[in-house]
Amino acid sequence: MSKYLFGIDLGGTTAKIGLLSEEGRLFDKWEIPTRIENYGKHILPDLAAAVKKGIEENALTNDDILGIGLAVPGAVLNEKDVAVCVNLNGWGGCDVAEVFSNLTGLPVKVVNDANAAALGELWQGGGKGYKSMVMVTLGTGVGGGIIIDGKLLKGAHGAGGEIGHLKLYPDTEELDTCGCGKSGCAEQFTSATGIVRLAKEMGMTDADSKFGFLSSKDVFDLAIDGQEKALEVVHCFAKEMGRMLASVSAVVDPEVFVIGGGVAKAGEFLLELVQPEFVKFAFPACEETEFHLAELGNDAGFFGAAKLFVD
Amino acid sequence: MSKYLFGIDLGGTTAKIGLLSEEGRLFDKWEIPTRIENYGKHILPDLAAAVKKGIEENALTNDDILGIGLAVPGAVLNEKDVAVCVNLNGWGGCDVAEVFSNLTGLPVKVVNDANAAALGELWQGGGKGYKSMVMVTLGTGVGGGIIIDGKLLKGAHGAGGEIGHLKLYPDTEELDTCGCGKSGCAEQFTSATGIVRLAKEMGMTDADSKFGFLSSKDVFDLAIDGQEKALEVVHCFAKEMGRMLASVSAVVDPEVFVIGGGVAKAGEFLLELVQPEFVKFAFPACEETEFHLAELGNDAGFFGAAKLFVD
Repeated sequence: MSKYLFGIDLGGTTAKIGLLSEEGRLFDKWEIPTRIENYGKHILPDLAAAVKKGIEENALTNDDILGIGLAVPGAVLNEKDVAVCVNLNGWGGCDVAEVFSNLTGLPVKVVNDANAAALGELWQGGGKGYKSMVMVTLGTGVGGGIIIDGKLLKGAHGAGGEIGHLKLYPDTEELDTCGCGKSGCAEQFTSATGIVRLAKEMGMTDADSKFGFLSSKDVFDLAIDGQEKALEVVHCFAKEMGRMLASVSAVVDPEVFVIGGGVAKAGEFLLELVQPEFVKFAFPACEETEFHLAELGNDAGFFGAAKLFVD
Repeated sequence: MSKYLFGIDLGGTTAKIGLLSEEGRLFDKWEIPTRIENYGKHILPDLAAAVKKGIEENALTNDDILGIGLAVPGAVLNEKDVAVCVNLNGWGGCDVAEVFSNLTGLPVKVVNDANAAALGELWQGGGKGYKSMVMVTLGTGVGGGIIIDGKLLKGAHGAGGEIGHLKLYPDTEELDTCGCGKSGCAEQFTSATGIVRLAKEMGMTDADSKFGFLSSKDVFDLAIDGQEKALEVVHCFAKEMGRMLASVSAVVDPEVFVIGGGVAKAGEFLLELVQPEFVKFAFPACEETEFHLAELGNDAGFFGAAKLFVD
């Protein structure tokens, strides 16, 4: 008989919880607040209570549950050991799988949240049906999750998929320094922050925003409305994004790029801008690489965490 | 009892053959000419005769042989089907493993030659003892072979590891077009051809070569001798190479780069130029990535081919 899975995406403000079938069908989802006080000592007990409640409310027992996948905002070793998480007030630094398993009486596997989102999109989102995928998350920064033959490429120093730090330009004095401390990084052009930086360099100002504070959403909204300056900015963004992804293809050559994060809310408009630029730059064999939008939004993390139990 | 392996690296002029132990010890190696006339119909019979001779001369029988790994200069599917090879006068287009196995009475696995070289260096060369490695071959072009958890990353369109086509510059009219048809590729700066192009742009001429025809070897030899212009050229090369490898690290984050090919004959001088430039550009977590020279030279291909039988 088919069993059930819990997926949990533990964030700094809330934890998103999903109850799924082994086939990836979502039965129930809800959120609980993340209490980070006292180095997060309430986090796992709160989550255990939420899981217990979820089991009872869905008229299940522990025997019906295959396991709990837990996505956390930090580095994870061997699907169990979590490094101290700065965004969770120093929580972590222990074998979270063991502690949480003792609290719930269920098997637990732990995964980094960005990696979980990539796994989730591969399982039930924009990457469904593919074996190799690069998930690109365009937010404040640019995140990447690389999946080859269904497995995450984590990297020897945990930096696999740090595609926002591809070096699109030589270090130059003119460029702002990237968050990583170096300059010339793709993220300086292709993140939400990078788009606003580009826009301001190209003459847009906070006065262009109806909220008095220019955001990447403003730039895309204005471009969709046909404002000339905003169109210039998004074309410049698309050129850098195309070159970034062409470089990713020349290294790992995925079947599909799945684009998510806040900037991806520009939807098909974004893909139609970026894909032709990708083709211009791409190694010829890679020109047909597919482009999809992410589909699971904030649910991607708990989908991917749950997926750890259905290999 | 430990068995023996044959590794063969089939090139356009000669085939290199090695007889190895399962542990990767080399017992014997020799070459035979590659006869490419008549669409290469002699190639496999010639190789079968060479294998038979090798077995007899080493006082072995077929029972002592685990199998034959064959590296070919073309695309390979499922370790058996070889696409038509342009460098072998149209040879290929069939299940080479089956044909060669029938001729030799031994199990056969087939692999692309660049991938074989990477596997060989990982097994018994500059990447020995590592699990993830990027092999960089600096020749007429720039080849790459990416190994993650001991397995080749081939790519969805066979373009995995085409790191010479990372886009270091936006397409511009000023740059020559790369062999791939696009421009701004790393290969235009980091290959032997790219180095000569850089050197000529920077004022060196064929008169700088004692052979009357400037090569990348001339440039490195002059730089090692302290010639100012040549030093400028190799520093410029090192900067582009550092940025190329920093970008590779931001995608796959290997434990080690293994540098081979003709240009790598500049040896430690090359590594000492490139590694500091890599560190300047690299994502901080990757700064400690190791750099080794390839060690197997022209034997890497047959080592890697043989390795297919010892997973």
